[in-house]
Amino acid sequence: MSKETVNIEGAVCAPSLPHSEQIVMGHGAGGRMSHQLIQKAFLPAFDNPALRAGDDAARLESGLHQNLAVSTDAHVVWPLFFPGGDIGRLAVCGTVNDVAMLAAKPLYLTAGFILEEGLEMETLQRVIASMKSAAEEAGVQIVAGDTKVVQRGKADGLYITTAGVGVLRAGYAVSGANAQEGDAVILSGTIGDHGIAVLGARGELGFQSSIQSDVAPLNHLIEAMLGASRNVHVLRDPTRGGLATTLSEIAAQSNVGIMLDEKTIPVRPEVGAACEMLGFDPLYIANEGKLVAMVAREDAGSVLKAMRNTRYGEEAVIIGEVTTEPRGRVLLRTTLGTQRVVDMLAGEMLPRIC
Amino acid sequence: MSKETVNIEGAVCAPSLPHSEQIVMGHGAGGRMSHQLIQKAFLPAFDNPALRAGDDAARLESGLHQNLAVSTDAHVVWPLFFPGGDIGRLAVCGTVNDVAMLAAKPLYLTAGFILEEGLEMETLQRVIASMKSAAEEAGVQIVAGDTKVVQRGKADGLYITTAGVGVLRAGYAVSGANAQEGDAVILSGTIGDHGIAVLGARGELGFQSSIQSDVAPLNHLIEAMLGASRNVHVLRDPTRGGLATTLSEIAAQSNVGIMLDEKTIPVRPEVGAACEMLGFDPLYIANEGKLVAMVAREDAGSVLKAMRNTRYGEEAVIIGEVTTEPRGRVLLRTTLGTQRVVDMLAGEMLPRIC
Repeated sequence: MSKETVNIEGAVCAPSLPHSEQIVMGHGAGGRMSHQLIQKAFLPAFDNPALRAGDDAARLESGLHQNLAVSTDAHVVWPLFFPGGDIGRLAVCGTVNDVAMLAAKPLYLTAGFILEEGLEMETLQRVIASMKSAAEEAGVQIVAGDTKVVQRGKADGLYITTAGVGVLRAGYAVSGANAQEGDAVILSGTIGDHGIAVLGARGELGFQSSIQSDVAPLNHLIEAMLGASRNVHVLRDPTRGGLATTLSEIAAQSNVGIMLDEKTIPVRPEVGAACEMLGFDPLYIANEGKLVAMVAREDAGSVLKAMRNTRYGEEAVIIGEVTTEPRGRVLLRTTLGTQRVVDMLAGEMLPRIC
Repeated sequence: MSKETVNIEGAVCAPSLPHSEQIVMGHGAGGRMSHQLIQKAFLPAFDNPALRAGDDAARLESGLHQNLAVSTDAHVVWPLFFPGGDIGRLAVCGTVNDVAMLAAKPLYLTAGFILEEGLEMETLQRVIASMKSAAEEAGVQIVAGDTKVVQRGKADGLYITTAGVGVLRAGYAVSGANAQEGDAVILSGTIGDHGIAVLGARGELGFQSSIQSDVAPLNHLIEAMLGASRNVHVLRDPTRGGLATTLSEIAAQSNVGIMLDEKTIPVRPEVGAACEMLGFDPLYIANEGKLVAMVAREDAGSVLKAMRNTRYGEEAVIIGEVTTEPRGRVLLRTTLGTQRVVDMLAGEMLPRIC
């Protein structure tokens, strides 16, 4: 495999670090270690064109059927409930969003539940009600499910793995590999809200926080964007690993440079303050209701306008542009006027946030 | 909802027992408690035609796309490796089989991995290699995946949730609701092998056992059956809850009686002996590479012949017939010549077997 190939969940091959011979939390954080695990363990076994494309959902274009997009996400967030959301809303939105990021219309979800013995029925019912509400908001149906029960002490209440099926819209070529020089980089809103909200719910902030997770289905936002332009080239949601990791993936997949302007990247003051206290960079904090898009410069205005007319795109802004050099890298023009390289998340920062 | 409605994973509404207010292991055993959990918690929220049909996969017949079958299964088997299989083979075959049981051709799988911190990389790689091999045997591609990592002590090594997408074959009306009076009941081979093999791997048999799990992909067997007859009415794999539970589900879904002839039901001597020692009834032990079919009587011979020409159908036999009465119930003509009612598994028998 070449250095730029392939992934599960947007992973792009990065220069190799020595591999732990055991799984550690960093393997699940969505950064470089996750990518290396996928490169080493999963891809050699499962390699196929849909997987190799390197997007968050698989594009299935066999002659046997209408073109479909398929994706899956396992959800292990702890705690189960946090300001602005819960594991049920996350499980629906995460998969809806991954399917939608291929310019597909998400239609159906499946849900596999792993329940811990002793879980309160009322807790399960709250999670299910939240899934129902999120599915209704997204306009998808949950058509198949499965439940397993594991012994007390496992599974932290419950884990939910959803898979999603959508129909690809004809006439769009949206992929992490399709960023083009001159494209505007658009972000749909503030970053870091989800990760910091979950941390707050764990009591790890050390202060009372009003920060809410942004977890939301983005398929209607995407529909509005695609209605405004045929030249949306990339769509991706910066979840685990944050905006920095997502943009690094895209830069590598598309073999382009990305130049960001730090002062344009919206961060809520409370999120910024929490990050400063804890020594985190908001660029690496997970989001669950945001997307980043690369759009042909001439269409950026109309796409932005369409986004701002939707519930989850009101704060959309242009945060940078796609450049020729340095290929495969993301640069940030800081508020101080200096430039620095933005790399993938190296290992673990905030585990169990999705 | 009426008494015969709906399910996730083949669950059919049964007379109500008082509900525990917490999740217990029996909720995951695939019998009556699992069904009640689904009835109470999942269906009121997620009710839709595909789910309501009550089969192991969802049949999607919207005008938007070619007709699809979609299914999901969470896999939490312990131990991860057992004679004849492992969690990887199980995760592929379980979902391939659920999709195939709708007379669909399984094409694509997704896989969500929940890994325990400290899991040996070599263990993960063995599981992945097993998935690759099972996917090749079934002729399906694993097109999307996700990995999460949870803390040490959670997840027993790893859990895998797979989802499957297949294309429905035109011209067949296969469903658990389609058993018809006079149909032959065909079983593809011996029962109880998987459950007893897993128990043996846990060291719970109290003796050395040579019993191998039957875990296998059944889609090629099903293709052969459908090639032999357009009158295959029901296909289902008797997994959790065993043959008894599966047939009870079908009797309720189709509102027919089922009369079984005990002496025709194949049980390996070692499995029979293990069951006798442990006080288990093989009718309730899980299988992972067997199917039960209801086929129009006039086609039963040609279907049997086609089955016996395939690797996983060599021991196929007729074990009974579909009757008018008693509606919704399964009767067993015992080897002693008496008759008894065969009911669903009531609660927990062997947890964590799939």
